[in-house]
Amino acid sequence: MRATTIHAARDIRLTDVATPSIGSPTEAVIKVTAGCICGSDLWPYRGENPITAGSTIGHECVGVVEEVGSAVTSFKAGDFVIVPFCHCDNTCAHCRAGITSACENVGFTESGQAEYALVTQAEGTMFKAEAPSDDDMLKSLLSLSDVMPTGWHAAVAAGVRPGGTAVVVGDGAVGLCGVLAASVMGAEKVVVMSRHEPRQQIAKAFGATHVIAERGKEGEEAIREITAGVGADAVLECVGTDQSMQTAFAVARPGSRVGFVGVPHGVELPVRRMFQKNVGLFGGVAPVRAYLDELLPKVLDGSINPGLVFDSVRPLDEVADGYRDMDERRAVKVMLLP
Amino acid sequence: MRATTIHAARDIRLTDVATPSIGSPTEAVIKVTAGCICGSDLWPYRGENPITAGSTIGHECVGVVEEVGSAVTSFKAGDFVIVPFCHCDNTCAHCRAGITSACENVGFTESGQAEYALVTQAEGTMFKAEAPSDDDMLKSLLSLSDVMPTGWHAAVAAGVRPGGTAVVVGDGAVGLCGVLAASVMGAEKVVVMSRHEPRQQIAKAFGATHVIAERGKEGEEAIREITAGVGADAVLECVGTDQSMQTAFAVARPGSRVGFVGVPHGVELPVRRMFQKNVGLFGGVAPVRAYLDELLPKVLDGSINPGLVFDSVRPLDEVADGYRDMDERRAVKVMLLP
Repeated sequence: MRATTIHAARDIRLTDVATPSIGSPTEAVIKVTAGCICGSDLWPYRGENPITAGSTIGHECVGVVEEVGSAVTSFKAGDFVIVPFCHCDNTCAHCRAGITSACENVGFTESGQAEYALVTQAEGTMFKAEAPSDDDMLKSLLSLSDVMPTGWHAAVAAGVRPGGTAVVVGDGAVGLCGVLAASVMGAEKVVVMSRHEPRQQIAKAFGATHVIAERGKEGEEAIREITAGVGADAVLECVGTDQSMQTAFAVARPGSRVGFVGVPHGVELPVRRMFQKNVGLFGGVAPVRAYLDELLPKVLDGSINPGLVFDSVRPLDEVADGYRDMDERRAVKVMLLP
Repeated sequence: MRATTIHAARDIRLTDVATPSIGSPTEAVIKVTAGCICGSDLWPYRGENPITAGSTIGHECVGVVEEVGSAVTSFKAGDFVIVPFCHCDNTCAHCRAGITSACENVGFTESGQAEYALVTQAEGTMFKAEAPSDDDMLKSLLSLSDVMPTGWHAAVAAGVRPGGTAVVVGDGAVGLCGVLAASVMGAEKVVVMSRHEPRQQIAKAFGATHVIAERGKEGEEAIREITAGVGADAVLECVGTDQSMQTAFAVARPGSRVGFVGVPHGVELPVRRMFQKNVGLFGGVAPVRAYLDELLPKVLDGSINPGLVFDSVRPLDEVADGYRDMDERRAVKVMLLP
């Protein structure tokens, strides 16, 4: 099959690789309807994560079941499914506690930017949906494989509640979905830190009430003003750099929590400040599967439209251009059609 | 007045210093009935915190109001009061949110191991109680100035709920109060990590169901067994060293929180593990005042007896011996009588 592979920093190719096949009774093979590029794919793309040359890349997709293993009973060939990027059996103690991303049998989609993908724990992971009738619905369903539940997780971890102020650090697709989540959860003020006009527009469509273009001390000062000097009631850290984490802690009010979903890179947590101000940290790899019961109905009834984060659609052949667009911030998020 | 002063590592003296007097309308002077030595006093005692030679030390006390400033209307000379170690106005936004330890006008008791102590925000800080009729009640009331609410804060921050397993890392007086808190909050299994027999006994009296004497990998393995491989539902970190923090995160189940109240010293938080396992961190300086409405009645009706942590009582003159006893672990916690 045709699949996206990474060979070195900034070296993304479409390559012929073996089509996945069932190797264990719990697996399923999905014919990918749409995949996409994740902000976290840019870490290896930029050479900031180790690269195994020639390995497939891409962990988000939706598609049609091609084949299932013998232990998979709730799905059959032809079903349209959302594929949470982290696979789970949905029966172990961690899954039952809602942390499906820490499943004892956790696995990950490894060829979401390809023609076919393997789901290691198909029964517990996949989520059936009606095949989308248009591109907008396709985008929103695709967002449910990672980016929307990840933004949602940031808001849950930060403890967003009705009323009060939520600050979102990061205007990538996850941050924007964090804005949407905080808004849906009823935050009165939703502040996004963003200096990119197209992203600001999406943030506003998602319910942002304030846009802060300043960074560092100036950005912190702007948030102090919005919160009358008290600090934010909930902070969503959606980047993963040390700078974004420091900003998150600087603007959080005492007693609040930073919800973090940006894969941490070079982050040194300000433990003394956390202690002195009683600001907590919670979050991590989003338990995507656990949120779909709640999020899919919201997509279907139109109360949320997370697909808006996809401002670019390309055929799979152009995947390398898609990476370039995202790396250079010409696109927020690129949907790929095999 | 006679007051405890620190001059260098392991150099604790009883010295004559100026008796505190009212310098601002919000203040009160307390004649100390009983003070005590805190585990955190051992950091400077051991030379692990900077020392200003000759400065007073000691932040926990109960006593009788000697004099109040003109802005203090709810207290008068002769009242017996608990003095939370961190002073607060109890009116600012942080106090109203329950984080009195981050009060905009925060202050600290600076001569709790002395004849008199100054409370900078008397109206918002002090808590009236009937003068204790015996030493046992005196001990329990004294514990409410810091150690018991701090253990309670660890349990609140860790999210202890009825059922499940709470693990307490640390068998100092705060850790023991954490055991008591977790037990009162209804944890089904309360595990204390302790290898000191006298402390194990207090822990059991406070409701510990399991005592783990092993440390490091062996201690973690013991907790894995108790929790059927899943990990603890809540972990109370009551030490503040890097080792205790690593242990806390190693035994916490995915989706749980480590509640930390040990002043962090040389701690490097395992941010990757926190992210991958979705284990949060919450806590800090305990908002003592905010918990007294709940804790004092429990002391008065005998449902908790936190005074048990005081296994040594000395006249103030013997304060240096008290420090030595605690440093060498011959005493859990020393009450001092001026």
